[in-house]
Amino acid sequence: MKEIKTMEFRDGVLYLIDQRKLPLSYEFFECRTYQDVDFAIKDMVVRGAPAIGAAAAYGVVLAAQQFMKEEKENFLKNMENALNVLSKSRPTAVNLTWAIGRMRGVLEKVKDLSVSDIYEALKEEANKIYFEDLETNKKMAKIGNEVIKPNAVILTHCNTGALATVGYGTALGVIREAHYSGKNIFVYADETRPRLQGAKLTAWELVQEGIPAKLIADSVAATLIRDGKIDIILVGADRIALNGDTANKIGTFMLSVVAKVYNVPFYVVAPTSTIDFNIETGAEIVIEERSPEEVTHINGVRIAPEGIDVYNPAFDVTPHENITGIITEKGIIRPPFRENILKLR
Amino acid sequence: MKEIKTMEFRDGVLYLIDQRKLPLSYEFFECRTYQDVDFAIKDMVVRGAPAIGAAAAYGVVLAAQQFMKEEKENFLKNMENALNVLSKSRPTAVNLTWAIGRMRGVLEKVKDLSVSDIYEALKEEANKIYFEDLETNKKMAKIGNEVIKPNAVILTHCNTGALATVGYGTALGVIREAHYSGKNIFVYADETRPRLQGAKLTAWELVQEGIPAKLIADSVAATLIRDGKIDIILVGADRIALNGDTANKIGTFMLSVVAKVYNVPFYVVAPTSTIDFNIETGAEIVIEERSPEEVTHINGVRIAPEGIDVYNPAFDVTPHENITGIITEKGIIRPPFRENILKLR
Repeated sequence: MKEIKTMEFRDGVLYLIDQRKLPLSYEFFECRTYQDVDFAIKDMVVRGAPAIGAAAAYGVVLAAQQFMKEEKENFLKNMENALNVLSKSRPTAVNLTWAIGRMRGVLEKVKDLSVSDIYEALKEEANKIYFEDLETNKKMAKIGNEVIKPNAVILTHCNTGALATVGYGTALGVIREAHYSGKNIFVYADETRPRLQGAKLTAWELVQEGIPAKLIADSVAATLIRDGKIDIILVGADRIALNGDTANKIGTFMLSVVAKVYNVPFYVVAPTSTIDFNIETGAEIVIEERSPEEVTHINGVRIAPEGIDVYNPAFDVTPHENITGIITEKGIIRPPFRENILKLR
Repeated sequence: MKEIKTMEFRDGVLYLIDQRKLPLSYEFFECRTYQDVDFAIKDMVVRGAPAIGAAAAYGVVLAAQQFMKEEKENFLKNMENALNVLSKSRPTAVNLTWAIGRMRGVLEKVKDLSVSDIYEALKEEANKIYFEDLETNKKMAKIGNEVIKPNAVILTHCNTGALATVGYGTALGVIREAHYSGKNIFVYADETRPRLQGAKLTAWELVQEGIPAKLIADSVAATLIRDGKIDIILVGADRIALNGDTANKIGTFMLSVVAKVYNVPFYVVAPTSTIDFNIETGAEIVIEERSPEEVTHINGVRIAPEGIDVYNPAFDVTPHENITGIITEKGIIRPPFRENILKLR
């Protein structure tokens, strides 16, 4: 198995694989300030709900490093500002709110210590988030692997791999586990317009791992599902409501509708940190609308004519009734989702 | 209204708008031989079922021009070869077979005339196909406009406009008609991966005409349909079976499934020349699989990693039960399709 280090905090610098440049070039983006991390999240140098959470946590550590020489009062004011900025870097993924919440909790607890002790405590918490994510993903992968039959053909959407997390991945983590446990699986990967995370990132991870796979345009999935060529669909999640409604990369909902019509099992793979216990249904989830250029340009080259308007939502909400189960590190949540999700609280 | 001349036969040359270069540049591709036309169809200089049919007809005229100096026997042998080559330039659109069939019929009828008289007869038939297509499209547009309500929001896929035909268009022809008859419509145009005909061609036509519209990634359509934001879906067709099953650009089937689940009217707009009376169901339609580079590269730039396999079908088949009606120049065909299609024979 190839180890892909999506992020690494070393000598006061957060190194991120620059995912805007994959698969053509493998470069690192260096964050030395929390503003660098804010930019990296906004511009999708790093993306994927769990990866965003961990990167933001290190952003808080970088902020503490930046303001280390300030008086305590100023330090705390600046830290509060950094926490706010980072928590708003992207709106949909709840893991970001969750990670920032943990960092804020630690800051609150140790705020009477010296600034350098605060820094150490924050770094420890960020490292915890980092290693917990890795451990969580490996647990999810093992649990998820139970629903994968030998020789299964698996359809997946967007990138939910090592690159979307600290390592291993969520939905793609289950695929890794199934592959390495010798199940002889085959993967169809949606290219995932407009950002092409499937073509650029998932395909790259699949090639790295030598997992047999084919890349498809998103709308090809419907025909494969109808024709009985897909045994199971695995997707990630950016936010899950109490009733099981799941916000994930645009295109997920479309897959779920076709899967339901043709009776193909549809699983969400996500750590419990993706569950937003504060919202009842998906209707409360804010869907980020991104720049028209993501649709009108590809790699900086214009494809659509000047003057055309664009609607470019980054996510959609899959209603719980289209979901077979939610694979988490604590087990597989099945309907009735509300009841079973509340048990995890 | 802006006149878009997809093709023009002038002074023994077939001029095609080079649709590979739109919308960034507006150039003409000159065909002086039938081989040029074969290439233009294969490489999608010209595309869209009705446009392919008309271009192929002019290809036959060019062949006659090429072999005009041959002995009659050789001339006829070469013509037969040209007809065969052109009829196989692309496999899915039946209009190609239909147009070549008409040209072959004329050739058969006049084969005892002088070579130059044969040439004139073939040119006359190609011109007939050309002008009939234009007339057919305007009839379809008027008929189709009857199902468009004032202020309708229309979703369309791929390019079915002037560029897909000799002029005006099929599904986009109905949209033109609705717009110019003052219905205050709004259009969502699927970008239509992998070839991006929606982003490159439909968006270009919509901007040219000043029709209010937004471009979307294909998978965004599902959310719009569910959320009640689409009043009607209009698509074209490449081949329609006797039972109403319709082959059209990849992604059409996906739309039809979501439309059916959420009760949105789904209309196919196509001339009766798109009906293949020789096949009972869509299962008999050959689906063209195109080059992996259409998915792994955009405008010649690689987006997916080396080593990833691709599945790239150019079309899919929408089952008749997902279709509300088929808008033709002879009226709207509604279920039961087989019975009503046979009446048109």
